[in-house]
Amino acid sequence: MTRGALSRQPTVHDVASAAGVSRQTVSNVLNAPGIVKAATRERVERAIQELGYRPHASARRLRTRKSSTIGIRLDPVTNGISGAVLDRFLHALTERADARGLRILLFTARDPADEIRQFERLLDGADVDGFVLTSTTYDDPRIDWLIDNDAPFVTFGRPWGVDDIDDAAHRWVDVDGRHGLAEATRALIELDARRIAYLGWPSPSGTGDERCRGWRETMETEGLGPGLSAGELDQLELRSEDGVAQGSDAIRGLLATGAVVDGVVCASDSLALGALMVLGSSVPIVGYDNTPVASAVGLPSVEQPLEQVAAAALDLLLESTDGPGAQEQPDPDSAAVIGDPEGPGDPRHRLLRPAVVWR
Amino acid sequence: MTRGALSRQPTVHDVASAAGVSRQTVSNVLNAPGIVKAATRERVERAIQELGYRPHASARRLRTRKSSTIGIRLDPVTNGISGAVLDRFLHALTERADARGLRILLFTARDPADEIRQFERLLDGADVDGFVLTSTTYDDPRIDWLIDNDAPFVTFGRPWGVDDIDDAAHRWVDVDGRHGLAEATRALIELDARRIAYLGWPSPSGTGDERCRGWRETMETEGLGPGLSAGELDQLELRSEDGVAQGSDAIRGLLATGAVVDGVVCASDSLALGALMVLGSSVPIVGYDNTPVASAVGLPSVEQPLEQVAAAALDLLLESTDGPGAQEQPDPDSAAVIGDPEGPGDPRHRLLRPAVVWR
Repeated sequence: MTRGALSRQPTVHDVASAAGVSRQTVSNVLNAPGIVKAATRERVERAIQELGYRPHASARRLRTRKSSTIGIRLDPVTNGISGAVLDRFLHALTERADARGLRILLFTARDPADEIRQFERLLDGADVDGFVLTSTTYDDPRIDWLIDNDAPFVTFGRPWGVDDIDDAAHRWVDVDGRHGLAEATRALIELDARRIAYLGWPSPSGTGDERCRGWRETMETEGLGPGLSAGELDQLELRSEDGVAQGSDAIRGLLATGAVVDGVVCASDSLALGALMVLGSSVPIVGYDNTPVASAVGLPSVEQPLEQVAAAALDLLLESTDGPGAQEQPDPDSAAVIGDPEGPGDPRHRLLRPAVVWR
Repeated sequence: MTRGALSRQPTVHDVASAAGVSRQTVSNVLNAPGIVKAATRERVERAIQELGYRPHASARRLRTRKSSTIGIRLDPVTNGISGAVLDRFLHALTERADARGLRILLFTARDPADEIRQFERLLDGADVDGFVLTSTTYDDPRIDWLIDNDAPFVTFGRPWGVDDIDDAAHRWVDVDGRHGLAEATRALIELDARRIAYLGWPSPSGTGDERCRGWRETMETEGLGPGLSAGELDQLELRSEDGVAQGSDAIRGLLATGAVVDGVVCASDSLALGALMVLGSSVPIVGYDNTPVASAVGLPSVEQPLEQVAAAALDLLLESTDGPGAQEQPDPDSAAVIGDPEGPGDPRHRLLRPAVVWR
């Protein structure tokens, strides 16, 4: 069939008829191509081209109020070592979203209040169907606003307010840093290290305190004995702002007391690199986030499963929006997701396990 | 005025009247808030809220075919050292775009043909007004398609085909790597280094060959003399695939010939780190891209002015789309832009100067 055979603008029905598929399949090719078999998609795309059909996203959007777009705030330019993690998450999220026919819209915000104004504007304009939030904080005002306004969202990061963690309205994915530090600590104990220091951030830090807990619990249950008494454990818990120089300073401070250290587990690769520059490679040191820096200098490091985090975040968000792509099966990679290790857990909350990359 | 005072849905005219501003100003607040004075914006936003006016982005889009959105392909997940550069560029671009009321839409593509299909789909749906392209290649098929289809675009990266560089239809911003390597080489000569090696990628590489040229020209004009003859220069030009281990291997290969080297300038921080691991810190080494790795290990490195690249890219794109934000003055930061150093140049082509960050 050629374009001339139609006396009017071709419609989705014409395309469906020419391709020998249902109207829904044409709609899927237009709105969520990732869920359509390649051969079918190509047949539909050929029909679209031959008929000269022009899908009009804005018209579709007006009708359905669905943009097939997910909003995410991009943090300001960072050139630090750990900034690589959120960038890798964004890459993973964009790839996963693309495979489901969804797009990612980036915006920036000066502060949480400004971010909330952006939420409002994007939702009012039907520019996005929902949001993925990162860098959550204690009593995060963004989350209150999104829940109050019934806006679909998912956070990469648990809520850190005391009563929020089981809030059914708050869908979240997070990585179990406690498990990561416990694994790192246990491995160093098996290497016969006894005086294993923890190098992390000042408390309170939701993320940091969990990581510290992984070290402390493992030391208390498996690390005490000849060479390390319970009373000596506190001395090995080091807290410092994030940074290479700060990490070096903290280790130097410990050594200046005459303390011996034969292993270090850290809350970040920056701190781990700082420890490495003081202790050299004779003492085993484990970083966190497996950044390019850790790889470059040969530091073992705890790696967050960002592909799985992205897949799980989209699963949870699509369940809550019931939007395009929601009809498909969950991403197979998100099957590796575990529940909260402390109980059967709420399926709207996913705590994933990191793993140490040894080198 | 309250919502009840209107017997119909409020319009932009109602908002303008309530806020005491022109209709155009209301439109700017809705479409390009970054260009409206904060006090005015707040007045308009208050009027919007009091009247209960609901701007409808999709309706606006249908009327104007302008999405105020720029598309950019995000490369696949990379965890390499140099991937940080494109991520930093994306951050800078998003911030600059946000300040002009523009948004960034991310998509992925398996290959150039797939990326072209994405262009087509996004343009057909009026989802984007134009594109920013990165990672340009020799005879890039994406650029041919965009020019043939009269689609607004700008590339971060010069066209590398022989006849394309002055193509008026191709707006580009790039960073003068030749200048960066020349500056690095000159500084090492001033430190009394004579036998300065270049460590870069196999030819042909548009970007790499330019960087090599900066080293070679400087060595030929300022570096030859006692201690280095013209015939010995070729021996100091090292080519290797990118990577830390590859950089170490190339330096070891040079040393194995009995050659002496008292300085190294590199096409990347990965290669520079490889050189550092063989030569130690006694030999001055300069990397490229000033990544977190260079900062962490204390390597000097050539830094690309990514904020300026982003500002210039948006200037060029808005000139070509005549879209929202195009009426404003060029971003002040893009005033630091220089023309092609070899001539007055075409204002649609901007070659910016990098600078070495010494440490």
